[in-house]
Amino acid sequence: MNVVKDGWFSELSELWPGQCMSLEVEEVLHKEKSKYQDILVFKSKTYGNVLVLDGVIQCTERDEFSYQEMLAHLPLSCHRNPKKVLIIGGGDGGVAREVLKHSSVEEVHMCEIDEMVIEVSKKYLPNMACSFADPKLKLHIMDGFEFMGQHKGEFDVIITDSSDPIGPASSLFQKQYYELMKKALKPGGLVCSQGECMWVHLELIKGMLEFCETLYPSVSYAYTAIPTYPCGQIGFVICSVDTDMDFENPVRALTSDQVTEFNLRYYNSDIHKSAFKLPQFAHKALREGISSK
Amino acid sequence: MNVVKDGWFSELSELWPGQCMSLEVEEVLHKEKSKYQDILVFKSKTYGNVLVLDGVIQCTERDEFSYQEMLAHLPLSCHRNPKKVLIIGGGDGGVAREVLKHSSVEEVHMCEIDEMVIEVSKKYLPNMACSFADPKLKLHIMDGFEFMGQHKGEFDVIITDSSDPIGPASSLFQKQYYELMKKALKPGGLVCSQGECMWVHLELIKGMLEFCETLYPSVSYAYTAIPTYPCGQIGFVICSVDTDMDFENPVRALTSDQVTEFNLRYYNSDIHKSAFKLPQFAHKALREGISSK
Repeated sequence: MNVVKDGWFSELSELWPGQCMSLEVEEVLHKEKSKYQDILVFKSKTYGNVLVLDGVIQCTERDEFSYQEMLAHLPLSCHRNPKKVLIIGGGDGGVAREVLKHSSVEEVHMCEIDEMVIEVSKKYLPNMACSFADPKLKLHIMDGFEFMGQHKGEFDVIITDSSDPIGPASSLFQKQYYELMKKALKPGGLVCSQGECMWVHLELIKGMLEFCETLYPSVSYAYTAIPTYPCGQIGFVICSVDTDMDFENPVRALTSDQVTEFNLRYYNSDIHKSAFKLPQFAHKALREGISSK
Repeated sequence: MNVVKDGWFSELSELWPGQCMSLEVEEVLHKEKSKYQDILVFKSKTYGNVLVLDGVIQCTERDEFSYQEMLAHLPLSCHRNPKKVLIIGGGDGGVAREVLKHSSVEEVHMCEIDEMVIEVSKKYLPNMACSFADPKLKLHIMDGFEFMGQHKGEFDVIITDSSDPIGPASSLFQKQYYELMKKALKPGGLVCSQGECMWVHLELIKGMLEFCETLYPSVSYAYTAIPTYPCGQIGFVICSVDTDMDFENPVRALTSDQVTEFNLRYYNSDIHKSAFKLPQFAHKALREGISSK
């Protein structure tokens, strides 16, 4: 775990066998074992500071904006009037930063199980962990399952910013979790979750979409390009309790003025629409099992 | 060069400093120095056979379809009636395979400088190098500049499937080359070239689009996702001698029946359109200097 060797960090994992991304390390900034996982932060040569949990890159300062912006603005722009948002995970603060750009949002609850991720991010990823002092942000250091069990019918949007389906986040890829989220939503509510990569986990994604369809009237899958995630890509599972939700044509599509005002570097309205257009192999595997758009 | 160490091939290059993709090697199949470059072919653990030139991955059997299909079908579907196509480079045969799927195409000329790439591909990448016996394919082992100097006003579409702008392919990223291509085109002709990656070479791309605009009335930039290229992404520079070419809405958009008939795994008409929708950072950097769509 946390392999730094000959000046390079290498992201070896059984989740993506036979391939490995490496980043050149300028300096190891932090190394610690929390109650839940191994935490490593290093300054890379060309990607800024990098947060690694259990040996897997979570974010780099150079390309984090792709993931954070998409995970936040895809669901938020599909909701008519998102006031109360829940983030499960997301301890680096990047998703909260994006969610708080929407003026309709009155409260953001963040439920992160590992406080150390927050502390480390405040110190080494200040441009991501920039919203923890915002009065709209309520932080809960606890398990997402437990939190949602205590909060029914409260949220307009629930965003799951998790690590991969091994270790502390594995339960966040299961049907029971999507049932709990559904109960925690208000009428008209949406969920959007980190949905792995179609090049390596097509079967896992297909399975998730299948159980989501039994729970939510509207289900879809989108993706974004990001250099430091495996295969340079990551997806999003997005569901709504409304029927016939048109995810590709959001009710509150951001104008180009808003894109500028929000200081967005990845997301715009064209990218939103394109994110749902799957390569043919994924279209065949995933869309055939999905009835809604 | 051609670094295989401890059972892994690592793609280190000054073209993408501080980052490195590695693939686990099952067996080195071929290693040779041609007149132009180092050639390596290995059987990988999880990506099939892999062709490497001068230390840089050119294609893997697992994900080649993304690049080959996009490089061929993006320009071909934008041409009203492509009969005569020129491929510069492309010695692995993948682009020729895709071009020949269009029934309008009567002749494909391939101009590859390095015969050894073709020989090695025939042996180790048979699903890519499957069209060399096709009577429509005319092979020319020579320099692309020289070939085009001898062929004026002949081609409907010219596709440049090159390696990166160091080594034998460096001249293919320069203005002089785009001038030569323009002269080799028939009226209504198009060019489409490998256009590097916006995450690492935004300035290079911007420069290319700027000189293309001085030569061609219509210029655009598209991209595709592909795990084994740096940052998981590669782009395409596409130009037409026609004014007001609407690249995003091709005149011969493939129907879903054609997508099936062509046995496509990446390209479809939705992906075509999406390929031109750039992330905000690239949109700002590249579109502001491009007048046409």
